[in-house]
Amino acid sequence: MNPNSRISGRFYGVGLGPGNPDYMTVRALKILQSADRLVHFCRKGKRGHGRTIADAVVAPDAAREIALVYPVTTEIEARDPAYGSAITPFYEEAAENLASELEAGHSVAVLCEGDPFFYGSFMHLWRRLAPRFPTEVVPGVTGMSGSWTRAGVPITWGDDVLTVCPATLDHAALVERFRATDAAVIMKLGRHLPKVRNALKEAGLHDRAVYVERGTMADEFICPLPDKTDDAAPYFALILVPGQGRRL
Amino acid sequence: MNPNSRISGRFYGVGLGPGNPDYMTVRALKILQSADRLVHFCRKGKRGHGRTIADAVVAPDAAREIALVYPVTTEIEARDPAYGSAITPFYEEAAENLASELEAGHSVAVLCEGDPFFYGSFMHLWRRLAPRFPTEVVPGVTGMSGSWTRAGVPITWGDDVLTVCPATLDHAALVERFRATDAAVIMKLGRHLPKVRNALKEAGLHDRAVYVERGTMADEFICPLPDKTDDAAPYFALILVPGQGRRL
Ligand SMILES: C[S@@+](CC[C@H](N)C(=O)[O-])C[C@H]1O[C@@H](n2cnc3c(N)ncnc32)[C@H](O)[C@@H]1O
Ligand SMILES: C[S@@+](CC[C@H](N)C(=O)[O-])C[C@H]1O[C@@H](n2cnc3c(N)ncnc32)[C@H](O)[C@@H]1O
Repeated sequence: MNPNSRISGRFYGVGLGPGNPDYMTVRALKILQSADRLVHFCRKGKRGHGRTIADAVVAPDAAREIALVYPVTTEIEARDPAYGSAITPFYEEAAENLASELEAGHSVAVLCEGDPFFYGSFMHLWRRLAPRFPTEVVPGVTGMSGSWTRAGVPITWGDDVLTVCPATLDHAALVERFRATDAAVIMKLGRHLPKVRNALKEAGLHDRAVYVERGTMADEFICPLPDKTDDAAPYFALILVPGQGRRL
Repeated sequence: MNPNSRISGRFYGVGLGPGNPDYMTVRALKILQSADRLVHFCRKGKRGHGRTIADAVVAPDAAREIALVYPVTTEIEARDPAYGSAITPFYEEAAENLASELEAGHSVAVLCEGDPFFYGSFMHLWRRLAPRFPTEVVPGVTGMSGSWTRAGVPITWGDDVLTVCPATLDHAALVERFRATDAAVIMKLGRHLPKVRNALKEAGLHDRAVYVERGTMADEFICPLPDKTDDAAPYFALILVPGQGRRL
């Protein structure tokens, strides 16, 4: 038995930033270039956003790549028990698959959009593997930071309170949160856009809201929310409500 | 007259990330290396945090450096009118000073801790100069992302709502915000620690709160908040309350 095979590989969660490869950190770059395995999440038949962001740095290489294909994504509501019963076995299996790689001594880097510990799928692998293997998480520029930068709207001034909400909350919960905050970011937009728009109107925040699709990416689209008259939004979109705190 | 002198320099706001220079972006690095002027904020007689983070990349060079020395910092409450009347002329003058550099054709990079558009002093220069000069803002990894990464606490899971509050809010406002959220980050801690601790207790969040001082820096200190028995916290500290949303 090769004695090296007893030394397990390092497990990485690598924040890749909001999309533009220039917004990757020095540490993320180094790990992308050196890890034995590059893992990305994707939908069936599609390339994952995480993998696409990494394209600028690492060419596709079948020997290094591991694609984790979600069994379900937005077809089922995440709060529906059917979602959990499809997705939990998926994370279990994916974690065991990566554990075998790590046990074989390979370093394994999971590619994460934005910051890994901010609503990241990676977290479901991390809680299974971090207790068992040497682990390093690399923070990244979040999608929201990239988006407010490109939109040209500083998000919080002075004593502003910022609330980050997933668009999956129901109308009443959204209105309540919007009424109690100075600034807001609404994530995971997709088909929830009409509901979010109405909640922003009810809370008096619609007029200063900004819509951002694929912020910092080549096909980015940004406009004031009142100018967006259709209801079509991809999953990879968010809404910003900039704060109005102390200007000095 | 040299015709080049008519072409004004580029104005940059450069997010440097939370402290560890490996967490700088590729774009930030490039600008630090090439800008004609490097601008940092600091207190009287101290080096600024922004400048310290950049040390790993750019050696001090008197010909390139511009230090903007705050006339007041935490001696006066920011909501006190005396604060505004000391600080507004400071930003006015600083902006005019940088405008002269830009008009002379020099590129000017303002060093920003974390992300420039997230509670950044830079924003007060940006609103004066961005309408007048070609401007580029580079997003950065926030102090809070660096902190929750190093603390090993994913901040938001599933449908968690995250509230970011400055510690300067009063006790009642803090309690109200804490009661209405799943996850929280409390910024600008300093002498407000005892008030924040009591508000977290009242809202039932104290037990899972984590204290982070200078996250990702060489002299970082992290502990569960209940283990921190003294009331001394620097300005460069924050508290994290991780969400408890859907584990899959
Ligand atoms: C599961 S969350 C992951 C967030 C990621 N970990 C981060 O730090 O930004 C995915 C959501 O992030 C938002 N998002 C991330 N990057 C974005 C970008 N570049 N432009 C617009 N929205 C983005 C979208 O709302 C999307 O639905
Ligand atoms: C004026 S705000 C600027 C925030 C910065 N623009 C960012 O994106 O993180 C300064 C506050 O950020 C927090 N902070 C920033 N970096 C930090 C770090 N590395 N560790 C702990 N707290 C940090 C502290 O609460 C500090 O009082």
